[in-house]
Amino acid sequence: MGLVEQREGTEAGRLDAFVDGAFAFILTLLLIGGASIPDSAAKLLHALGGVPAFAACFFQVAFFWHGHVRWRRLCPRDEAAGRWWSLLLVFFALIFVYPLHMVFAGVFSWLSGGLLPSDFAPVGGPIDMRILFACYGLAYACMAGTLALLFVHAAGSSARQGLDNLGARREMRVWSVPALVGLASALTALLLPLSAPGWMWAIPGMMYSLLFLIGPVVNRFNRRYVPA
Amino acid sequence: MGLVEQREGTEAGRLDAFVDGAFAFILTLLLIGGASIPDSAAKLLHALGGVPAFAACFFQVAFFWHGHVRWRRLCPRDEAAGRWWSLLLVFFALIFVYPLHMVFAGVFSWLSGGLLPSDFAPVGGPIDMRILFACYGLAYACMAGTLALLFVHAAGSSARQGLDNLGARREMRVWSVPALVGLASALTALLLPLSAPGWMWAIPGMMYSLLFLIGPVVNRFNRRYVPA
Amino acid sequence: MGLVEQREGTEAGRLDAFVDGAFAFILTLLLIGGASIPDSAAKLLHALGGVPAFAACFFQVAFFWHGHVRWRRLCPRDEAAGRWWSLLLVFFALIFVYPLHMVFAGVFSWLSGGLLPSDFAPVGGPIDMRILFACYGLAYACMAGTLALLFVHAAGSSARQGLDNLGARREMRVWSVPALVGLASALTALLLPLSAPGWMWAIPGMMYSLLFLIGPVVNRFNRRYVPA
Amino acid sequence: MGLVEQREGTEAGRLDAFVDGAFAFILTLLLIGGASIPDSAAKLLHALGGVPAFAACFFQVAFFWHGHVRWRRLCPRDEAAGRWWSLLLVFFALIFVYPLHMVFAGVFSWLSGGLLPSDFAPVGGPIDMRILFACYGLAYACMAGTLALLFVHAAGSSARQGLDNLGARREMRVWSVPALVGLASALTALLLPLSAPGWMWAIPGMMYSLLFLIGPVVNRFNRRYVPA
Repeated sequence: MGLVEQREGTEAGRLDAFVDGAFAFILTLLLIGGASIPDSAAKLLHALGGVPAFAACFFQVAFFWHGHVRWRRLCPRDEAAGRWWSLLLVFFALIFVYPLHMVFAGVFSWLSGGLLPSDFAPVGGPIDMRILFACYGLAYACMAGTLALLFVHAAGSSARQGLDNLGARREMRVWSVPALVGLASALTALLLPLSAPGWMWAIPGMMYSLLFLIGPVVNRFNRRYVPA
Repeated sequence: MGLVEQREGTEAGRLDAFVDGAFAFILTLLLIGGASIPDSAAKLLHALGGVPAFAACFFQVAFFWHGHVRWRRLCPRDEAAGRWWSLLLVFFALIFVYPLHMVFAGVFSWLSGGLLPSDFAPVGGPIDMRILFACYGLAYACMAGTLALLFVHAAGSSARQGLDNLGARREMRVWSVPALVGLASALTALLLPLSAPGWMWAIPGMMYSLLFLIGPVVNRFNRRYVPA
Repeated sequence: MGLVEQREGTEAGRLDAFVDGAFAFILTLLLIGGASIPDSAAKLLHALGGVPAFAACFFQVAFFWHGHVRWRRLCPRDEAAGRWWSLLLVFFALIFVYPLHMVFAGVFSWLSGGLLPSDFAPVGGPIDMRILFACYGLAYACMAGTLALLFVHAAGSSARQGLDNLGARREMRVWSVPALVGLASALTALLLPLSAPGWMWAIPGMMYSLLFLIGPVVNRFNRRYVPA
Repeated sequence: MGLVEQREGTEAGRLDAFVDGAFAFILTLLLIGGASIPDSAAKLLHALGGVPAFAACFFQVAFFWHGHVRWRRLCPRDEAAGRWWSLLLVFFALIFVYPLHMVFAGVFSWLSGGLLPSDFAPVGGPIDMRILFACYGLAYACMAGTLALLFVHAAGSSARQGLDNLGARREMRVWSVPALVGLASALTALLLPLSAPGWMWAIPGMMYSLLFLIGPVVNRFNRRYVPA
């Protein structure tokens, strides 16, 4: 391993330490943000009622974090573009954490018929639903889009070094699905008329089931590019 | 060291960084959660009164963290199952921290006859004790059970590679003891009738003394499997 | 790699871990400090109004952090001077974070005609502007100056080992520009008479456009020292 | 490097990551604990008035952290004793942070004639001084004593491996000086009669000037044990 490679390895390691530390903070923020410190059994039960929403947020954030870990596997070199996209991912994650928690707390409270607590009270009716789904969808699209751009960069970097970039190109397609779904959900929430009946406000949330499209996209990529 | 092994080493290192950072956060949460910032000598004394409970929590959390460090020693490869069980351990630890602190603050306050402060006031009588011990026991069982599953995975992974997995199988048995004890204590707290006399509510707490069974379990394992 | 070099590598790595962790904290502080946790759509919108200021702060802090990463590349050995200057950089960063956020929140609120929220209300008129710009300028100059001193140390260390120190000497010049600009802006804010007309209080802010001088300084350095 | 050494290196690295992360948290706690987030120029000035006390705390904590870094240099192996003493050091540091900040804020406020703010108001007179100096002295002695024990362990470990342990034995003596000074100051504060005149309450603080004894202790050690 030459001196240049070793130096680049050190810098990549420091960027990773920064990203890992920031994601660990984000999860703690989720917990602190979602529950005050209980001092009686009733408050403890109330705080534990927030666990399903916390679990959903935790694994959602871990999913994006693991995307960055997979990116590093495909792009071990430290280059300026990878550095800036990584910082952008941390930046979006720090912003994403609040609408993320509000959406999941609301969904679990609604699914349990109000048994599970929700810190989010949609007092304003449809206009609140529009704001919440638009913010969530845009933040979701920004994070997935940044990951897609990281893999675009990894594919280009591997190609310039004359290496195989099939994995990076596959991941690029995988992450463009949630980016497009988030964008479509946010647009739907913004374009739905405020006079729409109540059940129609579930549509922007339902659209996230389109994430199942990741499977067919990967299959189509493998059929076309992966040698049998 | 081939390229695949090196890449897996990097990913294992990032998972460890994530786990270590999250556990360090959990300990800070314990401190922030257990004491407001003192601005007079009386408040400083009051805050220091919480030190015994903080010490008990600190070494309890460090005990689980060290379990994960020992797991990594036996399973240095990065595999999907190990990754998800590790994330689950962090998730349970973030939830565990509140009932943990409430139980220990209550125990030390009771042992000292109210001299040491307790943030937990069991105003509701038996129903509060039931909730507290049930939450604590379940959280305890979840953490120890996740560690047991991590070692199950390590044993399987070593066996598939044709390596000796005696250490992983021994740890698996070690961690199943606290998992079962926590579960039994939680069940006892849930099944005790609310009309039971006050002293009986100490039983779920006393059951943690069954942790001494770890010793005989290890001895029996060594007698049966370790060649003399 | 001899034993001494390996030991120095370990200590340099721990210093880096400390610096990276502290910078990750600083960014979280920025977020927590700049917005309370929203529990309604209106508060979420208000919190998102702080995103432009947060973005500016985030990339400003990341800029200084990356300066330290570049320093480590040029000075991989662990020496007492490098250690103390690094700790001083973290210390200034922890102090810098509050005036930084106040300045950017104020600027974005002013640029948007009050549409974006500002936590900083300059109720005191000119005297508040003076205090804010003086604090910001001094903190900015301290951070850039510490980075310049880190590169002075790196240049000296490389020269003592008989290595090429052109990169360190170039960075030294690069970082002295923001140090001088920050100092000049702080002095202007302190020397402007309080009776000056309102528009003159924009001068200390405008002076940061002098950062474009980094380009000519680097060009002049390259013409004089870099062999063609 | 054999497999055992490599595994021990990984575990030592994870312990270091834990210690470094916890110390970075402690410094952030210092900042959050010592100042509310300013939203006007007057509050910013007030917060900046806490910078001298923050600086003193920051470098005091960094001093103990660097003691642990020096210990790792002398004891690169991961052994149970080193692990538990390291965790104990983090535990004491988390407790130390509050009396540390109160003492320094009080000292700087007193030195500046009340110009610099102090979050600590000794409303109770002598009894408050006694509590504050006793807590600070004990916490100081615990941290320095833990470091001394870490070096006792490092000296024993090196001796068992047949290596030179002169450095560890020197550090052991260095750290026993602050441990004894802290203990003596705490005892003085506890034994001073509450009716003592006001100036006598400066004695426990003055006793920290005995730290200059580190110099003679090191010189005597070098004369006796280091071959000329």
